[in-house]
Amino acid sequence: MNDTALWLDDVNIGDRFRTDTYDLTADAIIDFASEWDPQPFHLGEDTAQGTFFKGLAASGWQTAAITMRLLVTTGLPLATGIIGASMDLAWPTPTLPGDQLHVELEVTDVRRSKSDSTRGFITATYDTLNQHGDIRQHAAGRLLAFAKPCSNGAPIRQL
Amino acid sequence: MNDTALWLDDVNIGDRFRTDTYDLTADAIIDFASEWDPQPFHLGEDTAQGTFFKGLAASGWQTAAITMRLLVTTGLPLATGIIGASMDLAWPTPTLPGDQLHVELEVTDVRRSKSDSTRGFITATYDTLNQHGDIRQHAAGRLLAFAKPCSNGAPIRQL
Repeated sequence: MNDTALWLDDVNIGDRFRTDTYDLTADAIIDFASEWDPQPFHLGEDTAQGTFFKGLAASGWQTAAITMRLLVTTGLPLATGIIGASMDLAWPTPTLPGDQLHVELEVTDVRRSKSDSTRGFITATYDTLNQHGDIRQHAAGRLLAFAKPCSNGAPIRQL
Repeated sequence: MNDTALWLDDVNIGDRFRTDTYDLTADAIIDFASEWDPQPFHLGEDTAQGTFFKGLAASGWQTAAITMRLLVTTGLPLATGIIGASMDLAWPTPTLPGDQLHVELEVTDVRRSKSDSTRGFITATYDTLNQHGDIRQHAAGRLLAFAKPCSNGAPIRQL
């Protein structure tokens, strides 16, 4: 845990976070798809030509994974980690080789649990965009977060 | 494309599909998390002990990726592939080492596009369960699908 780690109490509606960037290559698209989403439009430029995408496109699940990596490593320093409870995703445009992706997150709700005041949920929307501002993924998620230990007489163990 | 490939016209509300299984190991959890979700509760049994999960748990994005792999390779033989437009996800319980996962999918809606009769959307709910019936992920997704070529005078290219 570092000094900038955020507890439930530190997060407010309207707070915004922006991550660093991730450069996506054709090889990385093919590697991911080979293991998790082996379909012609994700596996090679040649096999992708005759498909809906008309060229190599990344699996939406890779866009989701990149988004998580960016949030975890550079985006949202929650003290107890980013623990998703639920998530709505949409992929308005395909993620493509050469995309330099980053994530912009905005907190839309912060709510302490009524039954357990040591925890609560942060709701946030976050878009994953490329260097041209094209939105590759839109997400709205509910994250489990914890109150600062000792702030309410019910300490929890830190990471 | 094989003989069992399904076009939009072949899919009906209430159709059910069940995938084969995927055996998840601790090493696979750590490998995935190291690249996409590097948080203590996903990176090792030791580092996970002091966290909310009280032990090693898989990234929800790995559960989503395994679900996609199972659907693509053994679950839902759509003729033009599984192309997700949007998706709602929930992870009611953590996915754990030793889980043998499979996916059960049910079609809840099939709708042809009003503006382009060669395509439409299949809506489906699908649960990812382990060998004990614990639901690790619940999903509801909207998939882009295509009408059979020549069935309406507007052929599309096959994969």
